[in-house]
Amino acid sequence: MYRMVDLIEKKKNNNALTKEEIEFVVNGYTKGEIPDYQMSAMLMAVYFCGMDSNELLILTKAMRDSGDVLDLSGIDGVKVDKHSTGGVGDKTSLVLIPIVAACGVPVAKMSGRGLGHTGGTIDKLECFEGFDVNLDAHAFFEQVKRYKMAITGQSGNLAPADKLLYALRDVTGTVNHIALIASSIMSKKLAAGCDAIVLDVTWGSGAFMKTKEQAEQLAKCMVEIGKAAGKETVAVISNMNEPLGYTVGNAVEVQEAIEALKGNGPQDLMEIVFSLAIEMILLAKLATDRKDARRQIDEAIKSGAAFEKLRQLVTIQKGSDTAINNPDELPQAKHRIPLYSKKTGYISKCDALQVGLVSMKLGGGRKSKTDCIDLAVGVTLCKKINDYVKEGDVLAYIHSNYEKNEDILCELESAYEVSDFPTNEEPLIYKIIS
Amino acid sequence: MYRMVDLIEKKKNNNALTKEEIEFVVNGYTKGEIPDYQMSAMLMAVYFCGMDSNELLILTKAMRDSGDVLDLSGIDGVKVDKHSTGGVGDKTSLVLIPIVAACGVPVAKMSGRGLGHTGGTIDKLECFEGFDVNLDAHAFFEQVKRYKMAITGQSGNLAPADKLLYALRDVTGTVNHIALIASSIMSKKLAAGCDAIVLDVTWGSGAFMKTKEQAEQLAKCMVEIGKAAGKETVAVISNMNEPLGYTVGNAVEVQEAIEALKGNGPQDLMEIVFSLAIEMILLAKLATDRKDARRQIDEAIKSGAAFEKLRQLVTIQKGSDTAINNPDELPQAKHRIPLYSKKTGYISKCDALQVGLVSMKLGGGRKSKTDCIDLAVGVTLCKKINDYVKEGDVLAYIHSNYEKNEDILCELESAYEVSDFPTNEEPLIYKIIS
Repeated sequence: MYRMVDLIEKKKNNNALTKEEIEFVVNGYTKGEIPDYQMSAMLMAVYFCGMDSNELLILTKAMRDSGDVLDLSGIDGVKVDKHSTGGVGDKTSLVLIPIVAACGVPVAKMSGRGLGHTGGTIDKLECFEGFDVNLDAHAFFEQVKRYKMAITGQSGNLAPADKLLYALRDVTGTVNHIALIASSIMSKKLAAGCDAIVLDVTWGSGAFMKTKEQAEQLAKCMVEIGKAAGKETVAVISNMNEPLGYTVGNAVEVQEAIEALKGNGPQDLMEIVFSLAIEMILLAKLATDRKDARRQIDEAIKSGAAFEKLRQLVTIQKGSDTAINNPDELPQAKHRIPLYSKKTGYISKCDALQVGLVSMKLGGGRKSKTDCIDLAVGVTLCKKINDYVKEGDVLAYIHSNYEKNEDILCELESAYEVSDFPTNEEPLIYKIIS
Repeated sequence: MYRMVDLIEKKKNNNALTKEEIEFVVNGYTKGEIPDYQMSAMLMAVYFCGMDSNELLILTKAMRDSGDVLDLSGIDGVKVDKHSTGGVGDKTSLVLIPIVAACGVPVAKMSGRGLGHTGGTIDKLECFEGFDVNLDAHAFFEQVKRYKMAITGQSGNLAPADKLLYALRDVTGTVNHIALIASSIMSKKLAAGCDAIVLDVTWGSGAFMKTKEQAEQLAKCMVEIGKAAGKETVAVISNMNEPLGYTVGNAVEVQEAIEALKGNGPQDLMEIVFSLAIEMILLAKLATDRKDARRQIDEAIKSGAAFEKLRQLVTIQKGSDTAINNPDELPQAKHRIPLYSKKTGYISKCDALQVGLVSMKLGGGRKSKTDCIDLAVGVTLCKKINDYVKEGDVLAYIHSNYEKNEDILCELESAYEVSDFPTNEEPLIYKIIS
C-alpha cells in the first residue's frame, strides 16, 4: 500500500501526512511490520518538521485505537481524569482525588511510576501495605461504578503503540518534542475512557518543560487534541522550579498528603490542588462556578470527608489504613540527617531538579524503568524560596538508609542559593488553558 | 564509553561531534554494537543539522578505515582514480581510461554497476565475453603494476561501514544529503589507494544532484575531503540534463565508446572525456600544462594507441576482443524500433532521466540491486537538443527484446520536446573545482 521510506521522505520534506498514511505507520509499527530503524528515522523527521494539528489528532487517535479503549459510559456522572506532566514533591493526586471524590466527582485515574528525578503516584500508594495498583479493566470499571473512585497503574493493552513508540524515542533522542509528548499523553488519556481531562502541565527546573512558554505550547496542544477528540480538556500550567510542598520521596510525601487532607497542607501544594479540584468539579458539572466549587472543597476538608475518602480508597484497594492514623507505620529510613545553612539571608533558589536527583540517589527514584526503589527515603525541606535563614539553621533533612551521606548532602546543598534580598518569584500558577 | 543516545541528542541539538565520538559511532555500527534504529535516527539528525568540514573528514576517514585500505605505493607513478556521480549514456570511463593509459597515467579504477536510471561501467565491460570484473586486491595491484591499468568492481572489504550505512540510508530517507553522499564516495576512493582523484560531478535531470549549485556544493565538499586526507582531488561539474552521446544502454554504449576511441566520438562525450583526461594527466605530472595534455590526448587517439589500450585492457582481464573489431559480436537486441517526431522544429528537451528510465524498463537497468539486466537493449538517439527535426523524422530507436513496445515508445516520446526556436543550452562543463 505505502512504502515507509516514501513516507519518511514526505515528512522529511516538510509535508503533512494524510490520515491513511499516519494510520499505516502507527498500525504497521504496532504489528511489527515496520522496523524500528524506519520508525526512528520518521520520529527524527517529525522532530525537525513537526506535525500540524490535524496530523497530531490523527496520530493520537491512531495510538489510542492501537489497543483497548475503555468504555466508562455505564458509570453515572461526568468521569474526570487528571494527569500531571511530572514534578518533584508532586503528591497532588494523593490530596486532590480524595477531595474531588468527596465532592461527588467520579474519578477513574490511571497513574504512572516515578522515573529519573520525578515521582509517581503508584509508587506512593504502595506505601500503604497491600495496596493493589494493578486493577484490571473490569475491576477498575466496577470500582469506579461502585465507589466513584479508583487509581490504578497503566493496564496492559492501553495504547500499546504509544508504549512501543515511547521506548524507541527514549533511545533515539526524540523524547523532547511537544507534538510527540502531547500525542503520547493524550493517546493514553483518551483510551482510559473518561469524559473530561484535567492536565497539570509543569514548567521549570524540576519539570520536563524548562520554560513556561514551552509548557504553554504543550498545554495548548494537548487541550486542542482532547477537545478535537470529543473530551472537555483543561490544563493548569504550574511552576516546578522548586519542589511542591516540603517533602520529596515516597513515604514522606504520603505523610504530607495525609496532613494536607486534615487541613494542614503547605500553601503551594494546596494552591495547585485547589486549582485542579475546581476545574475537575466544574467539568463534572457539580458546581455553578469557581466560587461554589471552592466552597465545596473547603467543606470537604473541614468536615473530614476528604480525609475519609483517602482511607476508603486505600481500604477498597486492599491497602492497610493503619498508616493513615499513625504515620509511624509508614516506611521509615534509618537516618535523618540535617543539612545546615552556611549563609544568612533569603533563600533565592531551591532547585527542584537537584532535590529530585538527591531523592533518586538516596534510592527513592529510578534511574531506569526496571530499578527497585526504597519507599522510606527522601528529603524534607525546612526552608523554601524567600524564607529567611540564619547560618547554622537547618535547611533540610535527608532520610537515608545509607551509612555515608556526605556526597549526597553536598549535592542537596548545591540545590540551595541564599541572597541578601528576597527574590521575585514566578507565580505558582501561570495560566489555565481551556 | 559513550551512550549513542547522548550523541544523537548532541547532533540533534546542532553540536559538532568530536573525533572520538564519530569513531565510536562508525566502529560501533560496523561491529553491530550500535543498532540500526539508533543509527538511522543519527543519520536523520545529520540530515537536518549537517556536519562541519572537520566532522566530515573524520567521518570519511573512519569509514575508510573500517575495512581494507589498499596500498598502491609499490607501483611507480602517480596513480589516478576517477569517479562519476552517475549519469545516463555515461560511457566516459570506457573512453577516458584507455586514453590516459596510452598517455602513461597509471589507472587503478574501481567501478560500480548501474542502478535505477543510471548505468555502470562494470555492466558495460561485461559486454566483452569473459571479462573479469572481480579482481581481488592482489590481482588488481599486480595488473596495475604491470600494465598500468585495471578496472574492477568494488572489492569485498573496502569501506564496509559505508556499505552498511548506505543500505540503511536507502530505506530511511537519508540518501540525498551532500555531506553523507560526499563521505560515502570519498571513503571508498580513499580506501582504493590511489594518489589522486578526478571526480565527474553531474547535475541535471539524469543526475543525482538536480541543480548545478547542489553539484558544486558536493564537488567542493569532496575536493575538500580528498585534499584534507592527503590526495590531490579535482572535480569537473558537468551537465546531465540530456544523455551523454547518442546511446543509452550497455552494448550500444560500448559500441559508441569504441568509435570514440577511433576518433569518431560525439562532441559532448569527447568534451567531457578531454576535460577529465587533461586533469588526470596533470595530476599524474605527465604534462606541463593543459595544452600539452590535450596534445598528448589527440596524439593517443590519432595514433591508435588509445584504441589499442582498450583492446589490451579487455584482453588482460580475460575478455574476448573480437567485438572490438566487429561490433556485430556485441549483444544484439531482437528489435530495433524507430520513434518518429510528431512535430517540426528544434529539439528543446531530451530528458536524461526519462531516457534512462526507458532503458531500465527495456531491461538495460536495475530497479533494485539484485535485478538481472539485458546487455543488448537500450536507446539510440538520432536527435539531441537544438537539432532541427521535421515531422516524421526518426527521433530515436529503441533496442528491445520485448514483443510489445508501444508503451515504452510513448515514454521515450515524453522525453522529447520540440520548439519553434533553438533554446539556450546550459554549458556542458559548468566549473572545475580544485
